[in-house]
Amino acid sequence: MAKTPVLTPQAEDFPRWYQDIVSKAELADNGPVRGTMVIRPYGYGLWERMQQDMDARIKETGTQNAYFPLLIPQSYLHKEAEHVEGFAPELAVVTHGGGKELEEPAVVRPTSEMIINEYFAKWVQSYRDLPLLINQWANVVRWELRPRLFLRTTEFLWQEGHTAHATYEEARDFAARIHRHVYADFMQDVLAMDVVLGRKTAKERFAGAINTLTLEGMMGDGKALQLGTSHELGQNFARAFHTQYLSKEGKQELVWQTSWGSTTRMIGALVMMHGDDNGLRIPPRLAPTQVVVLAIKGDDAVLAKVHEIGGALEAAGIRVHVDDRTDTPFGRRAVDWELKGVPVRVEIGPRDLENGTAMLARRIPGGKEPVAVEALATLLPTVLEEDQALLLKQARERRESRTTDVTTVDEAVEAAASGGWARIPWATLGEAGEAALAEHSVSVRCLVTEDGAVPDADDAAGNVAVVARAY
Amino acid sequence: MAKTPVLTPQAEDFPRWYQDIVSKAELADNGPVRGTMVIRPYGYGLWERMQQDMDARIKETGTQNAYFPLLIPQSYLHKEAEHVEGFAPELAVVTHGGGKELEEPAVVRPTSEMIINEYFAKWVQSYRDLPLLINQWANVVRWELRPRLFLRTTEFLWQEGHTAHATYEEARDFAARIHRHVYADFMQDVLAMDVVLGRKTAKERFAGAINTLTLEGMMGDGKALQLGTSHELGQNFARAFHTQYLSKEGKQELVWQTSWGSTTRMIGALVMMHGDDNGLRIPPRLAPTQVVVLAIKGDDAVLAKVHEIGGALEAAGIRVHVDDRTDTPFGRRAVDWELKGVPVRVEIGPRDLENGTAMLARRIPGGKEPVAVEALATLLPTVLEEDQALLLKQARERRESRTTDVTTVDEAVEAAASGGWARIPWATLGEAGEAALAEHSVSVRCLVTEDGAVPDADDAAGNVAVVARAY
Repeated sequence: MAKTPVLTPQAEDFPRWYQDIVSKAELADNGPVRGTMVIRPYGYGLWERMQQDMDARIKETGTQNAYFPLLIPQSYLHKEAEHVEGFAPELAVVTHGGGKELEEPAVVRPTSEMIINEYFAKWVQSYRDLPLLINQWANVVRWELRPRLFLRTTEFLWQEGHTAHATYEEARDFAARIHRHVYADFMQDVLAMDVVLGRKTAKERFAGAINTLTLEGMMGDGKALQLGTSHELGQNFARAFHTQYLSKEGKQELVWQTSWGSTTRMIGALVMMHGDDNGLRIPPRLAPTQVVVLAIKGDDAVLAKVHEIGGALEAAGIRVHVDDRTDTPFGRRAVDWELKGVPVRVEIGPRDLENGTAMLARRIPGGKEPVAVEALATLLPTVLEEDQALLLKQARERRESRTTDVTTVDEAVEAAASGGWARIPWATLGEAGEAALAEHSVSVRCLVTEDGAVPDADDAAGNVAVVARAY
Repeated sequence: MAKTPVLTPQAEDFPRWYQDIVSKAELADNGPVRGTMVIRPYGYGLWERMQQDMDARIKETGTQNAYFPLLIPQSYLHKEAEHVEGFAPELAVVTHGGGKELEEPAVVRPTSEMIINEYFAKWVQSYRDLPLLINQWANVVRWELRPRLFLRTTEFLWQEGHTAHATYEEARDFAARIHRHVYADFMQDVLAMDVVLGRKTAKERFAGAINTLTLEGMMGDGKALQLGTSHELGQNFARAFHTQYLSKEGKQELVWQTSWGSTTRMIGALVMMHGDDNGLRIPPRLAPTQVVVLAIKGDDAVLAKVHEIGGALEAAGIRVHVDDRTDTPFGRRAVDWELKGVPVRVEIGPRDLENGTAMLARRIPGGKEPVAVEALATLLPTVLEEDQALLLKQARERRESRTTDVTTVDEAVEAAASGGWARIPWATLGEAGEAALAEHSVSVRCLVTEDGAVPDADDAAGNVAVVARAY
């Protein structure tokens, strides 16, 4: 009799597989208000580790954390014309507070440009106050009609950075620094994610920005997911909020600004980029638990041994968990740890004890082999680093093998429809071609240069459009 | 000519002094929606350090972090009768989302008992699922008619813990453990705060709780501030949400619950318990910057020396900042660091350089003295620990000296009116006396036993009521 799979196989129904994994690995549940989510401890543990690592990288740029209010007077949104147009359809509006109808309704922040700029205008007086580099970790609300856990939710958690600079060049360089040295480095080095760095077209740009830099990842089904963005805001908000400074030369000048964000969507991306039919595969550098040591049976010698190994691995700097719940069948526990994507299992039973060995099960390459118990503490750090590298390599190879160079809109649509990405010269595609793609639910994810770098301008010679269906 | 004070003196106008310090030390600004606040980087840095330390203590109890939605269907609030009555007047209500009027309005969470219990009811099935120990760091909204930054704000940040247990005793012990070993230990050991631990009277209890444990601190003006609470919820929410488990004996049983919270109000408490007419005094164990090394003048030898000292102190494990902004007058910078309450300043000028000394200015005891530069790295850790202890001692002595034992309501009102606390036997005061106090804006902050412990019951023999005016 064939084993009933815990998850719907990816090849059968990828969206269903995703739903299964989010639910069965206990990452999140749907909230009661449409599109909201409950992030369960296992999912939140991943978010905490992401936060910790990114927060350190953000602080290294000289940025400081602060906190701005959730509620924003509705009138603030109207100060920057493109911005309000972009966000109006997604707003949640508080009309009553403290038992009374409010004189002016307040919106729940969909993003904080409006309110932060109100304060930047007060805090920035002279060139000495620049650059002003602020980040906040917060929740935001954008009403979502087709919600999916982590990917599109009415409420999500994120960090949003907001900076003001004296010159265009400084702002441009700072947006690029966040894009590459905070977001891309973190995603590649810690999340083992393959990301394409590029520039959004005018159509796909953030509402109110003069340039949006993006990171795009290919999911297991060949669709694209936007993983983070860093915007040059130019002087659009500065003009709207009169954010100006007295220069060294004694002149009033408008500041140049950036904003940049990354969200709990990264958890969804982690699932869809690395997961397989057996569940999650968590990159070792991110994993809250890197190694789980399992007692196969509940006899005393085995239990003593798993705790001894747990202690030794912890002392070797590994994040380890000892599973001694031997009242639950071993097979069920092994499947559950596999589903949760813990990178390595060390399994110990009475026979292993006799041989001085343990069974080493590696989630990322798959497979099991016996190893000497005394070798574990020196072996495992290498194993974890190998598996970290393998995850990134697999993701990169998938993206490369499923990306096709094309020269017509029809070919691009065809490539996207068959579960892949297409690359097409931007000079060939153009805005007309971009509109034609949209009719087939295909979009330009980003523009890159011929050799895959981030272009300086939308219309630079040789720009290539990376097009795909997207989440 | 007398120096114009930076702050309104405490003795002249304590509330104005508080406002001045919050603004001039750049802790926070008022937000645009009434009662909301912008927490500025210096204030948020204090909160981050509080979070980090408390989060570790919370995790030591076996509690895991998670995240529940901001928006709660209005109908949920009606499930627990006392709870809705307690919170209804403070709610912010979202009536429109995504451009449409909602079928059912959603409230912005004022606390998360309602929504968390909805999920606890799903997650708890058997005794094996207990205890369920969850915490979240989040923002909450309670409409505030008389807002004050950090103390009473329409939106604030907090942690809220929610747990479910198999028995009354386990829940009771867990609430007590959080009260003493998370909150009290943290506040005393890290915040250097003197806190009185006690039990709320029925009148002051959390809406829906069977017992509320509290921590009360005396502020610089003799008023009380509630600094954290830990509630036994009994089975009130379990009944309302049908949260039950199959016991080992195969019976369906309702769970016993706790909830507990501490907020950004602790920042306000820090200001009002430790601050003086020159500004904040930040306890060294909390301080993001423990020692600031100031260059008095901008000559090269001095600048080289301050950075050398900064490096040496950092290597000694001290959180140090080097202030080399010699284009700003030294006096202004010294006053600003004093205002911000950095525990120790090390000041270096050309003359100090010749002598191989530095001027050591201690914010907490006050005063300055020259010390040998080479002694700093060994001296300062001791100095910081001494000053940490001194802050707590000063707060404790103030509370003891301003607390009076009384036997009548009139005497209690008199003590509170003259800027102090009163202790009165609960058997003498009773609910009638509590109501009489309320007419004078005096409340029972908590009940304690004769020897200052936390009573097991409201009406235990020998209970003493601690009464005061409160924030």
